Amino acid sequence: MTQLYQRVAFVGLGLIASSMALAMRRGGLVAETTGTARSAETRAIATEIALVDRVTDTAAQAVQGADLVVLCVPVGAMAAVAAEIAPHLARGATVTDVGSVKQAVNDAVGPHMPDHVHFIPGHPLAGTEHSGPRAGFAELFDNRWTILTPPDGTDADALDRLTRVWQGIGAQVDVMDPAHHDLVLAVTSHTPHLIAYTMVGVADDLRRVTDSEVIKYSAAGFRDFTRIAASDPTMWRDVFLTNKDATLEILGRFTEELFALQRAIRRGDGDHLHAYFTRTRAIRRGIIDAGQDTDAPDFGRSNR
Amino acid sequence: MTQLYQRVAFVGLGLIASSMALAMRRGGLVAETTGTARSAETRAIATEIALVDRVTDTAAQAVQGADLVVLCVPVGAMAAVAAEIAPHLARGATVTDVGSVKQAVNDAVGPHMPDHVHFIPGHPLAGTEHSGPRAGFAELFDNRWTILTPPDGTDADALDRLTRVWQGIGAQVDVMDPAHHDLVLAVTSHTPHLIAYTMVGVADDLRRVTDSEVIKYSAAGFRDFTRIAASDPTMWRDVFLTNKDATLEILGRFTEELFALQRAIRRGDGDHLHAYFTRTRAIRRGIIDAGQDTDAPDFGRSNR
Repeated sequence: MTQLYQRVAFVGLGLIASSMALAMRRGGLVAETTGTARSAETRAIATEIALVDRVTDTAAQAVQGADLVVLCVPVGAMAAVAAEIAPHLARGATVTDVGSVKQAVNDAVGPHMPDHVHFIPGHPLAGTEHSGPRAGFAELFDNRWTILTPPDGTDADALDRLTRVWQGIGAQVDVMDPAHHDLVLAVTSHTPHLIAYTMVGVADDLRRVTDSEVIKYSAAGFRDFTRIAASDPTMWRDVFLTNKDATLEILGRFTEELFALQRAIRRGDGDHLHAYFTRTRAIRRGIIDAGQDTDAPDFGRSNR
Repeated sequence: MTQLYQRVAFVGLGLIASSMALAMRRGGLVAETTGTARSAETRAIATEIALVDRVTDTAAQAVQGADLVVLCVPVGAMAAVAAEIAPHLARGATVTDVGSVKQAVNDAVGPHMPDHVHFIPGHPLAGTEHSGPRAGFAELFDNRWTILTPPDGTDADALDRLTRVWQGIGAQVDVMDPAHHDLVLAVTSHTPHLIAYTMVGVADDLRRVTDSEVIKYSAAGFRDFTRIAASDPTMWRDVFLTNKDATLEILGRFTEELFALQRAIRRGDGDHLHAYFTRTRAIRRGIIDAGQDTDAPDFGRSNR
């Protein structure tokens, strides 16, 4: 594949940035990569493992001369980073991000962007419970979806080039408006994470059941929740603070449904429970058929 | 290993029974196995794949001459099965089960058991989202826990022999009283399953987010919930109907915690969220260190 960008700058070097850098290298998609991170330790690790061609001390240095800038910081840090890099952005550069919330990023970053750059927010729907520059791997985006939320009037060529780089690193690309993105993600990601955090918190909190019992007997279902509840706390704090309305709406729906099932249990309404539990099997089948999860028992964990 | 039982009879031939039969064969633990199931189709499959040495049409036939009888039917079916087999049980036989609730099984089965058999309820904390006789595999119980809840006065030799057969098929064995078992399982299994069912039901129900969007974008977290929400509906209906009190108690705790987090989101209390999300990471680490889950990203799914 021909090189799509001459220089890609990553601001923030966590799981997503490091996976993108490795996937771009795998695909030979870009001529040069630079990167920076706020923490000196992260920069040292990135240098040690040669994650990008050049690690810089500041974001301003990283973006100089870059024709693609990828903001890979928590959503709450986007505004400050945008203000810092704005004076240093090259004419014609594309600025994108990988934040989990899109309206808030649009609002935080957009006003800082000079007219001579293309600002196209994005969100790869991929990740693991691991964080940091060592967590990245080139296959993270293979067969996953990336959603782009280009503002009205976005340059078609810039959008096309960004789309092709995502495809080049393995992803499929969809375009939607930021508010719809935030609602879809509230359903498929933000509310599930909050619920997983809550369930793990409840277990950790109980006095009559000890921690060691919870841990020993977690294979009965609980452990599936703990994976996503081990995700990066700063990132998730920012998600809930910035996608407040959609998350609260879906949470309201969730609570309503949960109360209906709770009532069925209290009343001994087995038919209601059986019908509900039958319906939910179909959506699992849909996810497997769409290639978004494995059909292997227990996610293909090592017990088999 | 020496053979621990001369004839083991499985009543019900789903995931657990089929895995036990295969694991017993792997370990050379028993001389002969028999089995039956209510559905003719299940019996035909069991015969076709030679899951046990002899498939019988009725439970009464299956248990004749068996020195170990394993009840592998949904909890709601236990009483009827116990009544059916009671007159046919051999003197000195051990009767156990694999139901997910123990007080209810004790109450349903115990009164039917003749004095000349040893009744020792049990529950292997292992399973997958797949059901039926073809779903079994010999490794299911390796490094998992099985909890036995022997009634007061249980014969020590019978308990020891049953313990050794579970160890022989890979499991570690704990003993506790049935009420505590049911509370522990309400935390580690029953409530998580109900919550997963609810979350999947909510997603499936929404009109503004389409099913295909939920499926396409499920890798952002949602898909972790769908695995356990695809488990056998009849089994889970019976779990909630028979472990009502403990499940409702833990659900109450869960709702309380969820409301506290919801309030933090509404008020923009980032410190509360961050502290909560940091605490839940530790329990994941405990589960991995205890060998009850993999540390591989995404449960080691095939994307890596």
